[in-house]
Amino acid sequence: MKAKREALLGLLRAIEEGKVDEDIIYLLLLINSIKGVYTTSSCSGRIGIIEEPALGAKPLSRWLVKVHRPLTFEEAKEALMRAERGLIFLKSQPPIFHVVSENLEIAKKVHALGLASGFKYTTFKAISSRYLVEINGTEYLTVPLGRDGKVFVDDEYLLFALEVGNEMLRRSKERLPRLEENFRKLKEELGEDELFRKLTR
Amino acid sequence: MKAKREALLGLLRAIEEGKVDEDIIYLLLLINSIKGVYTTSSCSGRIGIIEEPALGAKPLSRWLVKVHRPLTFEEAKEALMRAERGLIFLKSQPPIFHVVSENLEIAKKVHALGLASGFKYTTFKAISSRYLVEINGTEYLTVPLGRDGKVFVDDEYLLFALEVGNEMLRRSKERLPRLEENFRKLKEELGEDELFRKLTR
Repeated sequence: MKAKREALLGLLRAIEEGKVDEDIIYLLLLINSIKGVYTTSSCSGRIGIIEEPALGAKPLSRWLVKVHRPLTFEEAKEALMRAERGLIFLKSQPPIFHVVSENLEIAKKVHALGLASGFKYTTFKAISSRYLVEINGTEYLTVPLGRDGKVFVDDEYLLFALEVGNEMLRRSKERLPRLEENFRKLKEELGEDELFRKLTR
Repeated sequence: MKAKREALLGLLRAIEEGKVDEDIIYLLLLINSIKGVYTTSSCSGRIGIIEEPALGAKPLSRWLVKVHRPLTFEEAKEALMRAERGLIFLKSQPPIFHVVSENLEIAKKVHALGLASGFKYTTFKAISSRYLVEINGTEYLTVPLGRDGKVFVDDEYLLFALEVGNEMLRRSKERLPRLEENFRKLKEELGEDELFRKLTR
């Protein structure tokens, strides 16, 4: 897989540069070591506060704070002080993996694996030029907190919303060990990638 | 398609019983009239207040109010008075269509059609025993409002959250005419289903 070589080099470089969420580095390397699959953009799950200048104008949004573990009240308050323009949201999102497969058969195995690991929103995003499976959960929180620099919630509510968001993140991350175990089994079935072994020696 | 006959009869019955969201009846009939496709559970988009006894225990949740047009402040307040147990959420969700296709080629056309109509979260949910495309948007709002019958937000915030949720619903529904137009084109390409014509005469 030509594209796999590039993706692997990109991943290894990103890990070196500290750009990959630490708690999924091992899992990403495991998946990429399997013959016939590789990962593209993936995230270990996150919670943060984001500004969206216009509803739906996603490229123009900016994160005021974004972490891959529970967000503290102090961090949230500090981030909110930096809000300027647009709708302010507290967002909690589950881990998400994008896995490209060499062929349809393998893609179907990855899809079944995602669902079996508790990631109930696992789908095929593409099945033409390449086979792309998105392993995704359902634990999403999207809470509007204010607009144009003004916060419309009090501390008590912020604490409550953070509690719910952090709990959702915790629950979705709890599935990662099961996902890892299932990818380990897939590796036993499909074998190790020679290219991966060469590049990571 | 044997399964299409059952799905069609089910849809027509549901329409008669007033169980289908009025603003997508025409679109659902249009899609089902196309040779080689039919719809399963679909929704025209909704906003409402839901109680979830335990995070993630979706089958046990109950809607306190659910509408397919903007939710008013009075409706929200009235619904909140009926909250008893579990986490209370305000949820806004875009239109969602589940389209089964006769074969992979048609499924790919439907998938491309969903994306081209602005439903950016259109994916393949199944590509084995049957080909199922989910046409879905990204405009989701999930706002925790309280717990076990107690509401943690004041009227001002509730008004604000409703404004954001209703706006998201409005924007996502705005894409429905484009979706309808694209399905009309697909019908010109694939032709009309004899079975549909027979059953709806």
